[in-house]
Amino acid sequence: MPKSTPKYALIYWGGIPGRGEYVRLALQYAGEPYDQINNNSVPSHMVNLDKTGYPPHFAPPMLKLPGGQIISQTGNILSYLAPKLDLEGTIPEGEDEEAAAVRKAIINQFVLTTLDLNLEAHDTHHPIGMMLYYEDQKAESKRRAEEFRRSRIPKYLTYFSQALEGNLEGGPDGYLYGKKTTTADLTLFHAMCGLEYAFPRRMAALKKEKKYELVWKLKDRVGNEPRIASYLGSEERVPFGMGIYRHYPELDGED
Amino acid sequence: MPKSTPKYALIYWGGIPGRGEYVRLALQYAGEPYDQINNNSVPSHMVNLDKTGYPPHFAPPMLKLPGGQIISQTGNILSYLAPKLDLEGTIPEGEDEEAAAVRKAIINQFVLTTLDLNLEAHDTHHPIGMMLYYEDQKAESKRRAEEFRRSRIPKYLTYFSQALEGNLEGGPDGYLYGKKTTTADLTLFHAMCGLEYAFPRRMAALKKEKKYELVWKLKDRVGNEPRIASYLGSEERVPFGMGIYRHYPELDGED
Repeated sequence: MPKSTPKYALIYWGGIPGRGEYVRLALQYAGEPYDQINNNSVPSHMVNLDKTGYPPHFAPPMLKLPGGQIISQTGNILSYLAPKLDLEGTIPEGEDEEAAAVRKAIINQFVLTTLDLNLEAHDTHHPIGMMLYYEDQKAESKRRAEEFRRSRIPKYLTYFSQALEGNLEGGPDGYLYGKKTTTADLTLFHAMCGLEYAFPRRMAALKKEKKYELVWKLKDRVGNEPRIASYLGSEERVPFGMGIYRHYPELDGED
Repeated sequence: MPKSTPKYALIYWGGIPGRGEYVRLALQYAGEPYDQINNNSVPSHMVNLDKTGYPPHFAPPMLKLPGGQIISQTGNILSYLAPKLDLEGTIPEGEDEEAAAVRKAIINQFVLTTLDLNLEAHDTHHPIGMMLYYEDQKAESKRRAEEFRRSRIPKYLTYFSQALEGNLEGGPDGYLYGKKTTTADLTLFHAMCGLEYAFPRRMAALKKEKKYELVWKLKDRVGNEPRIASYLGSEERVPFGMGIYRHYPELDGED
């Protein structure tokens, strides 16, 4: 039997996990095969890749769908994929349309908040302009990273801890919604990996405080989900480096 | 007949249009009445306001739903509202589930890209930290605003012009999807109003270039939709001021 073509193709920059990783983790967790197309091989990421010339895409990641259309915006791709990959929680029997809309909205809200955190982490090394080199915005980066470490990381960790505690169904293992892995869990997992890579000193100190234990429980739990564990140990997982999460010791409070 | 209680309540800061305005415009366009609750009257915007203690909310805007639940994240609120307010394009007869998902994804993609633009506009006056005063990050703001004016605004305008041109159904009046007003149009409308308020010099120069004419057509068209025009002329429309879009002449290239 010939190997079938994967349904999905992820178009993203090569060499960094980046925002593409949030999409990869969803596909990997679900065991859904996918092709990868390096965005560098695409003339311009603003050029539309499907046949219709519409819609154009502002930036990768982009996902090529089974019908040939291409969609972009990380949170949007995850909303699209969630129902198809069974990543939007347990669907109660007889759930009506409104209850389904609320369930989707809660999960989507967590995803979008994590993506805000992701952008703030990026902006610690690019506070002035994403088209400029880090070296040309080092002084500003130092200031922004200090704010981020001091005020923003704890604020996000507090929020996610409250969510994990408030989700009474989830128990002690760290589920943001119900007791089933969703795109919300996978997204927060990766952001936590990224923060620990970029700010090891700060994150170790926060972990020691124990206040945010449930967030680390989620991180460990997701990392040990069989398909995720196997993906993380494979060559397919692109290591962190010069992407969104970067480790500059001076931005982690080491002078 | 007693006046019925509105189905929705928008929870947001008073005194600025802010991100709440994207939600207001959707409700206004649809003629859907709503209550407004000032977020200042809420003990903390991270505290959950519904009865279940779950989910918590990272920041306003938040929308109280007919069932009493509260959801947050602007793009998420708009995704939730779009089908209820008939703001997600014309639904073709016999449209299947997959086609509906793609239609929603295209509109949502435009909304999220506009909200990225919205955040970048905000960060021109808060490049270092949103909890610090503008006065304490003025030098950095000047650099970031310069990048924003020079490189980012034209990049976004190019993208949206391509979308408007690529939407063959839309004709010359500026529709991002099909030929019916969607959350995408309303969101871009408000971002354009904000950019013209904050960067009048730069925007006037870009308007003169005529390259982005379709984006201004959309802006004019939406502003003239009867319910929007009447809302804009009313006291309910909060003027721009010290919110996301701020006019600092020095950030618009006036030294």
